[in-house]
Amino acid sequence: MNEETDAGDLELRLARAYLLGVAEPPAAALAELIAACGPVTAANRVREGDVSGAVAEETAARRDRVVTAGDLAAAAENGARLIIPEDDEWPAWPLLSLSVAAGRGVAGMTAPLALWASGGGRLNHVVERAVTMVGARAATGYGDHIAADWAYSLAAEGVTVFSGAAYGIDAAAHRGALAAEGATVAVLGCALDAGYPAGHDALLNRIADRGLVLSEYPPGTPPARHRFLVRNRLLSALSAATAVVEADVRSGARNTANTAAMLGKVVLAVPGPITSRTSAGCHEMIRAQRATLVTSADEVLEAVGALGVDLAREKPRPERPTDGLTGQAMKVHEALQARKGKSVEQVAVESGVPASKVRALLPALEMEGFSERCESGWRRARSA
Amino acid sequence: MNEETDAGDLELRLARAYLLGVAEPPAAALAELIAACGPVTAANRVREGDVSGAVAEETAARRDRVVTAGDLAAAAENGARLIIPEDDEWPAWPLLSLSVAAGRGVAGMTAPLALWASGGGRLNHVVERAVTMVGARAATGYGDHIAADWAYSLAAEGVTVFSGAAYGIDAAAHRGALAAEGATVAVLGCALDAGYPAGHDALLNRIADRGLVLSEYPPGTPPARHRFLVRNRLLSALSAATAVVEADVRSGARNTANTAAMLGKVVLAVPGPITSRTSAGCHEMIRAQRATLVTSADEVLEAVGALGVDLAREKPRPERPTDGLTGQAMKVHEALQARKGKSVEQVAVESGVPASKVRALLPALEMEGFSERCESGWRRARSA
Repeated sequence: MNEETDAGDLELRLARAYLLGVAEPPAAALAELIAACGPVTAANRVREGDVSGAVAEETAARRDRVVTAGDLAAAAENGARLIIPEDDEWPAWPLLSLSVAAGRGVAGMTAPLALWASGGGRLNHVVERAVTMVGARAATGYGDHIAADWAYSLAAEGVTVFSGAAYGIDAAAHRGALAAEGATVAVLGCALDAGYPAGHDALLNRIADRGLVLSEYPPGTPPARHRFLVRNRLLSALSAATAVVEADVRSGARNTANTAAMLGKVVLAVPGPITSRTSAGCHEMIRAQRATLVTSADEVLEAVGALGVDLAREKPRPERPTDGLTGQAMKVHEALQARKGKSVEQVAVESGVPASKVRALLPALEMEGFSERCESGWRRARSA
Repeated sequence: MNEETDAGDLELRLARAYLLGVAEPPAAALAELIAACGPVTAANRVREGDVSGAVAEETAARRDRVVTAGDLAAAAENGARLIIPEDDEWPAWPLLSLSVAAGRGVAGMTAPLALWASGGGRLNHVVERAVTMVGARAATGYGDHIAADWAYSLAAEGVTVFSGAAYGIDAAAHRGALAAEGATVAVLGCALDAGYPAGHDALLNRIADRGLVLSEYPPGTPPARHRFLVRNRLLSALSAATAVVEADVRSGARNTANTAAMLGKVVLAVPGPITSRTSAGCHEMIRAQRATLVTSADEVLEAVGALGVDLAREKPRPERPTDGLTGQAMKVHEALQARKGKSVEQVAVESGVPASKVRALLPALEMEGFSERCESGWRRARSA
């Protein structure tokens, strides 16, 4: 990730905690600075104002903020810890979908600089087989029932249910997973200690008991509308599929689903009565072929098994360079030749992996050092 | 159609009535014989047993049957008439989809040899803007409501609602169209005088008042399971789109929809609660992308306006050869060149008409004498 691998753990963690709080996520310019010079140097340069105009713009308002070891200790007292990209449990593989999208120039897709977490789950484990379930806050009994019932079934099958801890569908999904004594993860649009949504303290505590509560926002950050939209990219990125249970035509759930589609993830939507406003968003997505209609938890599992899990599964450190590639990534890599480049379409035909997936996987493989672009298309990287 | 254009009207009509009753539809070999030598000669040859083995097999059991002018008069007393391909009101253009499918070797798609009709509607008029609405006999209140409501709206917009006069969705669709004082057409799987379904006599009379009741089966033919499946191809072919309102996973409505898809027609399905068995068939079709999800009568109109009506509209006798081509057929024809052939894909790109549609239209245009195949693909026919 950077040249500061010999920096002390506390130093790295303090630098990341500072950087996470100094700019409102997603901070694209700051992320580039960190990638270029490492978090400790980046933090020092931000503090001293020794940064480009773009980084200065992102960080000027809060650069005098101070994060001490005492702050981390105080957070720990509250059951919160900071997970940083340098940690083993960092979900590098699922988050790669964000870096790839950001690299394609999609605004707002910068990967998180670190994540505040509360709960006993290990982040790299809970993302291994994960589905995001989202939907309307003003859900109907129909939607609540489906969310809870499917989350129960998915959790019982060892799938982690991600959601946003909001009223309605989100809460029903978390509760269903908890009822199965399965893993569930809430990703918030405010600090872990913001006490939001009101009345969900007990639910969030139970989620932390069986999984994780995550946030990009440092202690004390209140909820805000834009933070929920920024949060949605994490719900999309950290799971293999996003299922929308009920949604109005305009809704946050649809934003999460559209982001998931852009990240190359599976998008699912549940139909309902055409007379129900909270199914109208789902129907519109299905009509526009932006989501696949699903009518059971089994169909969700099937969709994830077919497309998503291979990508979501954590990539173990390979013994041979390509040993860590699983499923579709492996098939795509095998379709590449050492010298002659192939087009995305050729690779799709030869690997049997859909072209849309190939298009997402090739840059991901490039970032991992397995593939490279050449004049005639894509080939195996020389180093691999 | 054949060389017997100078045959008398009664002679033609008696021959067609005989031929329609002498073989169980669809009678592919008999249809070929008629196409080759005309209905009067074909009828004589069948009566005398002077036919190929295939035709003999289709006609042996009933070839001694006699149809007289008295039979036609008796039918007329009951309000029934025989519409034959030689009549102006014969819906040649929509039925061409059957001939094209049969020409591609799809079994069971032979166009009807004639149609028994009761009612004041003119068949070529009622098919101009037509949608078929079908669904479960054991419909729910939800499905009944949608069928009646949408049929009302479609009929009020001048669209003829085709259905099968069965209990449940079919009846609700006919009633909705009647409530709007619009046109509606029932196509039966038994004779017009079979009194089936029991209790629908009054409904069938009202349908005849405002449109037509149609059947391939001569007076006295009882309903039978296979006749409903055979009838379904007419529901599919005579309208621009087939909308399935509610359907079990296995159902006649899905058979009609699948036939419509095969004929290149628009297929629509209405979603419903995933907890409802009668929506399961609709959901499965949408999931498999064999049907487009629709949530309102407006969306049905939109789908028909976009794809179907141009094909369904009756082709007037052209003054210039291509004057009768409408909409997509015209666009496809314009994309063709006089000498150099083009591939289906080229024609699709240049005409803006979807390739699947181009693939169906080119053979249809060929049969009409507007296009022809050549070594490099498709070009304008020399005669046109």
